[in-house]
Amino acid sequence: MTVNVSADMVMSLDGYIAGTDHSAANPAGQGAERIGGWIHAQSSWRERMGQAGGEADRDSDLMREWFEATGAVVMGRLMFDSGEEHWGDNPPFRAPVFVLTHRPRPTLVKEGGTSFTFVTDGIHNALDQAKAVSGGRNVDIAGGAGTFQQYLKAGLVDELQVHVIPVLLGAGLRLFDSLQTGPHDLEPIRVVDTPGATHVKYRVLKRK
Amino acid sequence: MTVNVSADMVMSLDGYIAGTDHSAANPAGQGAERIGGWIHAQSSWRERMGQAGGEADRDSDLMREWFEATGAVVMGRLMFDSGEEHWGDNPPFRAPVFVLTHRPRPTLVKEGGTSFTFVTDGIHNALDQAKAVSGGRNVDIAGGAGTFQQYLKAGLVDELQVHVIPVLLGAGLRLFDSLQTGPHDLEPIRVVDTPGATHVKYRVLKRK
Repeated sequence: MTVNVSADMVMSLDGYIAGTDHSAANPAGQGAERIGGWIHAQSSWRERMGQAGGEADRDSDLMREWFEATGAVVMGRLMFDSGEEHWGDNPPFRAPVFVLTHRPRPTLVKEGGTSFTFVTDGIHNALDQAKAVSGGRNVDIAGGAGTFQQYLKAGLVDELQVHVIPVLLGAGLRLFDSLQTGPHDLEPIRVVDTPGATHVKYRVLKRK
Repeated sequence: MTVNVSADMVMSLDGYIAGTDHSAANPAGQGAERIGGWIHAQSSWRERMGQAGGEADRDSDLMREWFEATGAVVMGRLMFDSGEEHWGDNPPFRAPVFVLTHRPRPTLVKEGGTSFTFVTDGIHNALDQAKAVSGGRNVDIAGGAGTFQQYLKAGLVDELQVHVIPVLLGAGLRLFDSLQTGPHDLEPIRVVDTPGATHVKYRVLKRK
């Protein structure tokens, strides 16, 4: 069975997914309130975080679609470290998560279907493990930027949805940080525009 | 009378408007064929260049709209130097063009309504001269990236349309090259999606 590998990234028009001085302690960095704010405003996100309220609009539907399409998740260790406390005992993923790391560690089983398995033998192995348990749904490359770039450069991402927030940050952590891979063609497969973001989904074409 | 200052920029999803090793002799640089190719395929562009053929589709209509909305143009000297020969005796602008330079030079009058006036006393003066002759239509900041960034940082751009080409270049000349200005809010006012590009027009909001 072919499993689709997807990535959903929230970025400013000038290409940043976080502000300056981002760290495990402050993953959003300085100046990136508009990006995190877009995520945290959605009722679909808040529901997964066990919070009430939020906007129940088209943006929120898109985030729900992304959650529901995902059967397993891969992320980098910095993203795990920075999110673990915030996500709490019942993290929003509700799926097996594979964390790329150099340090072996026992699997963490959380409530609601989320587990964190620590993979020390590389991006291909983590992806294979995720595909095996995704139940035919997407494997989502959740981030951060470095992890996303590794999978993209290796030709392992099939679909990329970019949620472009209408703001120029001027500085920060770039989603596409000089990939240095030569031109790589994409095919737009859906565009949804809302006041909050322009959501463009691409198929990542295989290199010829 | 208030004159709208606009910029229309063609960029790859990863933020490049030209490839690597771009210069006055090779303004598109290496690897950016998809960007220049999108422009040169449009029948509206070809018509302005005195060429037959090209695609007469929604992309071409958007480029025609941009030409027709423009009453005067401002550009940097590198863009002028790299384009002058290519544009020929009847350049595609058909409007007064103001070129930012440090070297005084007499105005060049071309066929079809295009003239090139060389402005040595800064971006504000060039914009004021352009506004005075734009006939109430837009003053278009044509580029290149450095000139666009100067006007954007000075808060002088009212509307920005980004034509996002579905390609990752991986390297080159960035449209938004670490503006370092702090967050700057935009308001999306129109999105048009075609197979060739996602065209997003923004109002650039004034800083609070």
